[in-house]
Amino acid sequence: MAVKLGRQTWAPGRIPVIVQTGTVVGPIEGEGPLREWFDRVYTDPVAGERSFEQAEKEMMLNACYTALHKAGKTPTDVDFFLAGDLLNQIITSGFAALSLQIPFLGLYGACSTAAESLAVAAALVDAGCAGLVLCAVSSHNSTAERQYRYPTEYGSFRKPTAQGTVTGAGAALVAAEGNGPRITHVTVGVVEDYGIKDPFNLGAAMAPAAATTLARHFADTGRSPDYYDLIVTGDLGSFGHRLMLDLVAEKGGFDLTKNSQDCGVMIYDAERQDVHAGGSGCACSAVVVFGYLYRQMVAGNLRRLLLCATGALHSPTSVQQGEDIPVIAHAVSLEM
Amino acid sequence: MAVKLGRQTWAPGRIPVIVQTGTVVGPIEGEGPLREWFDRVYTDPVAGERSFEQAEKEMMLNACYTALHKAGKTPTDVDFFLAGDLLNQIITSGFAALSLQIPFLGLYGACSTAAESLAVAAALVDAGCAGLVLCAVSSHNSTAERQYRYPTEYGSFRKPTAQGTVTGAGAALVAAEGNGPRITHVTVGVVEDYGIKDPFNLGAAMAPAAATTLARHFADTGRSPDYYDLIVTGDLGSFGHRLMLDLVAEKGGFDLTKNSQDCGVMIYDAERQDVHAGGSGCACSAVVVFGYLYRQMVAGNLRRLLLCATGALHSPTSVQQGEDIPVIAHAVSLEM
Repeated sequence: MAVKLGRQTWAPGRIPVIVQTGTVVGPIEGEGPLREWFDRVYTDPVAGERSFEQAEKEMMLNACYTALHKAGKTPTDVDFFLAGDLLNQIITSGFAALSLQIPFLGLYGACSTAAESLAVAAALVDAGCAGLVLCAVSSHNSTAERQYRYPTEYGSFRKPTAQGTVTGAGAALVAAEGNGPRITHVTVGVVEDYGIKDPFNLGAAMAPAAATTLARHFADTGRSPDYYDLIVTGDLGSFGHRLMLDLVAEKGGFDLTKNSQDCGVMIYDAERQDVHAGGSGCACSAVVVFGYLYRQMVAGNLRRLLLCATGALHSPTSVQQGEDIPVIAHAVSLEM
Repeated sequence: MAVKLGRQTWAPGRIPVIVQTGTVVGPIEGEGPLREWFDRVYTDPVAGERSFEQAEKEMMLNACYTALHKAGKTPTDVDFFLAGDLLNQIITSGFAALSLQIPFLGLYGACSTAAESLAVAAALVDAGCAGLVLCAVSSHNSTAERQYRYPTEYGSFRKPTAQGTVTGAGAALVAAEGNGPRITHVTVGVVEDYGIKDPFNLGAAMAPAAATTLARHFADTGRSPDYYDLIVTGDLGSFGHRLMLDLVAEKGGFDLTKNSQDCGVMIYDAERQDVHAGGSGCACSAVVVFGYLYRQMVAGNLRRLLLCATGALHSPTSVQQGEDIPVIAHAVSLEM
């Protein structure tokens, strides 16, 4: 039975464990500093498929099968498949679920979906509804950019604040028992609106959501930021991350400058790669956390990690109708 | 602690109760046979807003506030808001969550989302993560038809098998305690593909998914169809519902002809209204179940109801790329 800590936060009673992960990335991510921590780097962004959409599905499936294989499991061992992506009708997840034949619950939280999937998996395991849950998210630069902004072929100029959608997929197996990082706390975010309408500056839109959810997490758990070895935001990018640091200091008096990083910054080498403000997309926090950081935890280099995954609920339709871009952030505490 | 009954089905340990509901519909649904069972009928499909998208958000919010008001609750009493709709990036739900300021988990299960939201709410309540969860779904004929098929203004001819997206929204308050129909069993569906590519014949696409999930539910629970006073499918429409009856008889030897109906058939009067094969959309099963059937249960006219909500994971992108339309169905058992 979970313990409620305020309205947004709970601590699972039957503590779920991330027993295994799988991560795959595209060629640009494979040239970044975290290359060696991913299970597979695709050198072809179409992954040998007929379309970018099919390539994204292939990547999500590959991440899932990798996690299953490393855990010595097959799809029939898994109770539920929780997945989401950035495409309309989350088709990557739907078609992946068709291949996997695991009972499926589709999620949409934009780039916060990795954390959302861990939250729902934690509840299913805690309630005894599931012994093993497979969580997966994906994004693909060529499917997302053309759906949300412009097709790559259009060659549009991008602002320095623009982030690029990460190509890749991350999967995590959440179990009722086993070894690995444990999901000790979940803080579910509230949707907020900070007046941003610019899809080329989503880091600024999401930074206040991350600051609000982090402040709520610290208040609900009674923990100070120092409790964590690392507080990693989902995909604020370089501008958004700096803005978040200022906001948590201003609003809550928290100093996160020593132990906070951002997945959107970590995934690329800004000096060497032409990536503007960094990475974004569902896969961004998933591949960094399930790839690099998960292995650091298992190796004993990192004991307490707070993932605060951010999502811009950006819709071309609503932006064209003059609406702001609402944002959300969920925090999940992972501890060895 | 939930009891697992096979891989797809569980019986909650701490049994969640639907303590209140709210339903609103558009003008065409308001001319149908269930008119008096909805909390509000909009005579204007734009609901006084500037766009159909904003009208859909207004409808979802109205359904939510109606459920809250009838229960004597405010948004601050609610732990989590679980919502989904048919629009890209589920913007109706995202903007409703922004207004409600309730911690939000976004779902996507196409027209099966009402059942999906009850499933996740049941797990959250059962695990002790939540005392009160607000579930909501919506659809709007004028937002969905133009996104998935053709804008209404185009005046395209429609096949007899075509269903029309229901305009409306349904909300349900799921609580750890209280009076009302209890969620006694959940059967989560598997995504399947029956080779249908025609978005004007989604009933045929979804019928086998409903048949499979129903057969799985009966096998897992050991119940026969006779156990239920009514087995109601989400939105198969008249052709799809007949096909489902044949399939469950063929596959499982189950006779559902006596106690099965379909929300897509029930919501309109096929004799009097020009509705082709019936209604569809997230709101279809939500307004029929949370409006009409919920009240029948509370009034004691119906004791055991099995909702089998069906979803066609239809994407214009994947259909244009030559893919089939995958389908899913989730079953939720409601008992007084």
